[in-house]
Amino acid sequence: VISERERRVIAYHEGGHALVAHALPKADPVHKISIIPRGRALGYTLTLPTEDKFLVRRSELVDELAMLLGGRAAEELIFADPTTGAQNDIDRATTIARQMVTEFGMSDELGPLRLGQPHGEVFLGRDLSNRPDYSEEIAARIDAEVRRLIDGAHLVAREILEGNRAVLDRLAEELVVHETVDVDRVQELFAGVEPFTGAGTGRGTAAAATDVQPHRRTP
Amino acid sequence: VISERERRVIAYHEGGHALVAHALPKADPVHKISIIPRGRALGYTLTLPTEDKFLVRRSELVDELAMLLGGRAAEELIFADPTTGAQNDIDRATTIARQMVTEFGMSDELGPLRLGQPHGEVFLGRDLSNRPDYSEEIAARIDAEVRRLIDGAHLVAREILEGNRAVLDRLAEELVVHETVDVDRVQELFAGVEPFTGAGTGRGTAAAATDVQPHRRTP
Amino acid sequence: VISERERRVIAYHEGGHALVAHALPKADPVHKISIIPRGRALGYTLTLPTEDKFLVRRSELVDELAMLLGGRAAEELIFADPTTGAQNDIDRATTIARQMVTEFGMSDELGPLRLGQPHGEVFLGRDLSNRPDYSEEIAARIDAEVRRLIDGAHLVAREILEGNRAVLDRLAEELVVHETVDVDRVQELFAGVEPFTGAGTGRGTAAAATDVQPHRRTP
Amino acid sequence: VISERERRVIAYHEGGHALVAHALPKADPVHKISIIPRGRALGYTLTLPTEDKFLVRRSELVDELAMLLGGRAAEELIFADPTTGAQNDIDRATTIARQMVTEFGMSDELGPLRLGQPHGEVFLGRDLSNRPDYSEEIAARIDAEVRRLIDGAHLVAREILEGNRAVLDRLAEELVVHETVDVDRVQELFAGVEPFTGAGTGRGTAAAATDVQPHRRTP
Amino acid sequence: VISERERRVIAYHEGGHALVAHALPKADPVHKISIIPRGRALGYTLTLPTEDKFLVRRSELVDELAMLLGGRAAEELIFADPTTGAQNDIDRATTIARQMVTEFGMSDELGPLRLGQPHGEVFLGRDLSNRPDYSEEIAARIDAEVRRLIDGAHLVAREILEGNRAVLDRLAEELVVHETVDVDRVQELFAGVEPFTGAGTGRGTAAAATDVQPHRRTP
Amino acid sequence: VISERERRVIAYHEGGHALVAHALPKADPVHKISIIPRGRALGYTLTLPTEDKFLVRRSELVDELAMLLGGRAAEELIFADPTTGAQNDIDRATTIARQMVTEFGMSDELGPLRLGQPHGEVFLGRDLSNRPDYSEEIAARIDAEVRRLIDGAHLVAREILEGNRAVLDRLAEELVVHETVDVDRVQELFAGVEPFTGAGTGRGTAAAATDVQPHRRTP
Repeated sequence: VISERERRVIAYHEGGHALVAHALPKADPVHKISIIPRGRALGYTLTLPTEDKFLVRRSELVDELAMLLGGRAAEELIFADPTTGAQNDIDRATTIARQMVTEFGMSDELGPLRLGQPHGEVFLGRDLSNRPDYSEEIAARIDAEVRRLIDGAHLVAREILEGNRAVLDRLAEELVVHETVDVDRVQELFAGVEPFTGAGTGRGTAAAATDVQPHRRTP
Repeated sequence: VISERERRVIAYHEGGHALVAHALPKADPVHKISIIPRGRALGYTLTLPTEDKFLVRRSELVDELAMLLGGRAAEELIFADPTTGAQNDIDRATTIARQMVTEFGMSDELGPLRLGQPHGEVFLGRDLSNRPDYSEEIAARIDAEVRRLIDGAHLVAREILEGNRAVLDRLAEELVVHETVDVDRVQELFAGVEPFTGAGTGRGTAAAATDVQPHRRTP
Repeated sequence: VISERERRVIAYHEGGHALVAHALPKADPVHKISIIPRGRALGYTLTLPTEDKFLVRRSELVDELAMLLGGRAAEELIFADPTTGAQNDIDRATTIARQMVTEFGMSDELGPLRLGQPHGEVFLGRDLSNRPDYSEEIAARIDAEVRRLIDGAHLVAREILEGNRAVLDRLAEELVVHETVDVDRVQELFAGVEPFTGAGTGRGTAAAATDVQPHRRTP
Repeated sequence: VISERERRVIAYHEGGHALVAHALPKADPVHKISIIPRGRALGYTLTLPTEDKFLVRRSELVDELAMLLGGRAAEELIFADPTTGAQNDIDRATTIARQMVTEFGMSDELGPLRLGQPHGEVFLGRDLSNRPDYSEEIAARIDAEVRRLIDGAHLVAREILEGNRAVLDRLAEELVVHETVDVDRVQELFAGVEPFTGAGTGRGTAAAATDVQPHRRTP
Repeated sequence: VISERERRVIAYHEGGHALVAHALPKADPVHKISIIPRGRALGYTLTLPTEDKFLVRRSELVDELAMLLGGRAAEELIFADPTTGAQNDIDRATTIARQMVTEFGMSDELGPLRLGQPHGEVFLGRDLSNRPDYSEEIAARIDAEVRRLIDGAHLVAREILEGNRAVLDRLAEELVVHETVDVDRVQELFAGVEPFTGAGTGRGTAAAATDVQPHRRTP
Repeated sequence: VISERERRVIAYHEGGHALVAHALPKADPVHKISIIPRGRALGYTLTLPTEDKFLVRRSELVDELAMLLGGRAAEELIFADPTTGAQNDIDRATTIARQMVTEFGMSDELGPLRLGQPHGEVFLGRDLSNRPDYSEEIAARIDAEVRRLIDGAHLVAREILEGNRAVLDRLAEELVVHETVDVDRVQELFAGVEPFTGAGTGRGTAAAATDVQPHRRTP
């Protein structure tokens, strides 16, 4: 059985994902937030896209990074003692950021190149393909660019949560009490949340040309 | 079903490939452009060579790089928010640029040498052969040269598209409406497009000795 | 048969683990300490959590590092001639510290990123996955950060043991005589031990935002 | 069917090999030149040694490098737009140059040492043996020495072809018309070609002690 | 059949092991020395511990290094022309020194960390596990620390042998004549040997906190 | 059939091995020299040790390096155009020099350490074990030390051959005429050859403590 203390951490973690998703203008609507464990997850935030998608834009990926880091950012803000609960979020965010830089050509710093071997092929059950074929200098620039993307997303998540702390507290409280918050109640709770404009954030040059819109995700 | 918004992105992406192909004097004629999905592709541009080919010239490869990056360049020009739709184009362009430098001896900077193991052999279903046998210094120079080729091609594609923006808009519009544009209509649409001379581009020294001609490709 | 000399080393080693665990405020109560060999271990310290746990906080991991190094720290303090007995403790502590930095995103220095391939998958019985995909510069910063975490934990363990030397001596003596010390006697022995506040330690910036609490462990 | 344009490129490419071979005094006589495709080759130059050979001298290898690069050099001279047709020549020349430096001890700069694992053994169908066991510094010096050998050979080939441009043009013309030129006609065409003395070339110090003689080869 | 010259080298080699073992105060008594070949060894020195051992102290490992290098040190002292006979001793000493630094946390310079993958697991009959996961900087510091341990042990061995040259000569002479020297005669021969105190040696800081005691070993 | 020109090269190559072997005082007597091909060899020099050997001294290995390079040195001296005939000699000399430095602890510069994995174990038919576990700095120092050993040996071989040029010429002449020279004639031919003392050579510090003696070998 999950302790009260941990249920509170999970509530803030999921609340963080949901609030960041809502505040980023391109996101799909949040449909449901829950702290009832499902599979290996201790909680989940359900978002639904409004239409099918075959292409993903750079701005959508940038916002997905922020949403993925929203759970960890909430833990930091409230408890100042982050947990292992964000391991999977961090893993996914890093994979996306690396793909943006090394496969999707979405970094001005590195250019429209594939860096390293293409992803996805598998040898005896293991993907050996991402063995680098680039120099140490490029390796360092990839590292720096991935770090910049992650740090920017982390900062955006933190600013959204700090700017809407009261909403976050109320949402977490309801999750601890009711375990699940559905679409109608989400709408009411987030009614006063301003769309995030990025003013004052460290989003940096790479995101400069994109208009930030809300992003939806099913965790 | 593909949304209207995405159909528009795809139309500009394919239009970019086709317009760059047409403007580069050595290219085969563009026969058909379509945004009807086929296999894993969301659209395609069909070009046909006017004769069999057993050798590929450096200038043809340089133009193929520009045509491959024409889709991404169009997305950037129109939407300022590039998508994952160029991943395969980027992958192919990078492979060609690396081959030019490391297998075809087409870089004055690196010389007429094979760098690394030759391509093409496979071990238990995976190509392990491109393990480098060169120093870190050569690795860095290969990276720089590949980057220079890609950046040059990207710039050429951008200049062609910017210089023929009205043609690109009309082509994309017709693709959104009719889904397919055939050879006769392609001819009419591109009637006023000047062959690209490279004046003012950053094509750099490597391309300096080549006379740019149109390039044909079946994507 | 284990010699008297080695039984004394083992008694201080286990005593070190137990005393450090007790002094760190977040730790579970120590239930039993023994120098009777069990499996491959020459002794053990049993701690029991007071509730189920699904998340582990950064502060708990920091304290686990200190407890793991408590055995080695006790050997150093008493004998000034450390033994191979801490090999497994060192192995576990290093694995945890690396995970904190490279998988859990718990280092401000490296940021909320996954560094290297994710852990846990196995190829023909061996985990080949932690092959790095980062630059030499990041490798050096990971090394430095892991070292900082281990050194900080080592220092905390040393300070706790030095500040409670008389308790450590009495505990080791009882272990040598009775081989096992149970929960009630542990309580009596540790009655006067002050919770460790970290004042004056070199815990450094990474731990600065966390409130240290006791940690429980079954070795 | 091969186009007229490509037949002309192939004629100059094979003419380049043959003319360089003839001008280097140690070469076997050229017996036949053809632009009729055979196997994977689009053309070939046949040379026959005047006696069996069990040892290969450094000077012969230096000349073989020049002859191998004679095809590419001819393309550059005539068309200023090199093709992929020299890929195999470049591959073979690089392999020979690396062997001279790392296996045959023929570089004064690197000395009479074997560098890296010996060639030729195979693991599950792939040669894994040329994994380096030397330092980055030696890797860079090997790269520089291989480059120097290749660049020297390339320069020699260029000088021979430029100094005998009229002969090259006549030979290529005959190949385009008759497809094959046999030994007697080769003799007549090359009658006025001076043996190459290397005066004014950048052959460098490594070749300084050798008396250059013609070299024969069957491509 | 082994020549007289080689029997003399072997006698000094084994004598070196035995004398160093005896002079280091923590060592087990030397029971037997022989130059009769056994298995792959050309001679052996037999020592017996006085009790079972489950832990090995740093000071014991430091002395084991000195004893392992005692054979080579004797060859150097007497013949100034060392042989391949020490290959196995060098191999074992290096393995121990690396373990002290990378697995046992016994280097103050590197700290109580595991460096690289843990030892001992095997893949298809080969241990692939010691693949490093550390930076080049740490690799260099490990190298330096291992070298320091080996050099210190080598120096200790040399000083013991030089300080007891007459005893070494007598022992080697008896081995050449009788082939085997048993425990009683060992006692008589070593009667006047002073325990080694390390005064004046280059044992360095790592050993500073340990009290050197004799070490026993069965080679 | 081997040409006269190549028989002359082979005669000088084998003559070089034999003369260097004879001049180095520790060598076994040369029993036979032949330029009749045997197996994969085009010629051979037969030496016979005067007694069984179980240990190899550093000085013997140093001399073996010189003898191995004697063939190449003779080719350089006489023809100034070395052949591929020394490939196997170079391979063996490099292997020995690396073993001296990395396995036998015979380099004062690197110390009595094993560097890299031990030799000799095999995985699926291939030795994967010499994968380095040392830093780039040590790799560079190993390279430098191996180079120094090889260069020293090369210089010794050259000096011996230059100082006995007339003997070398006579021996080569007889080999060309009679194909084989037996032990008695070898004695007569080498009667006036002074033992090599190393005065004036660049043998360097590593060899300084050894008294050079002749070395025997069966190639």
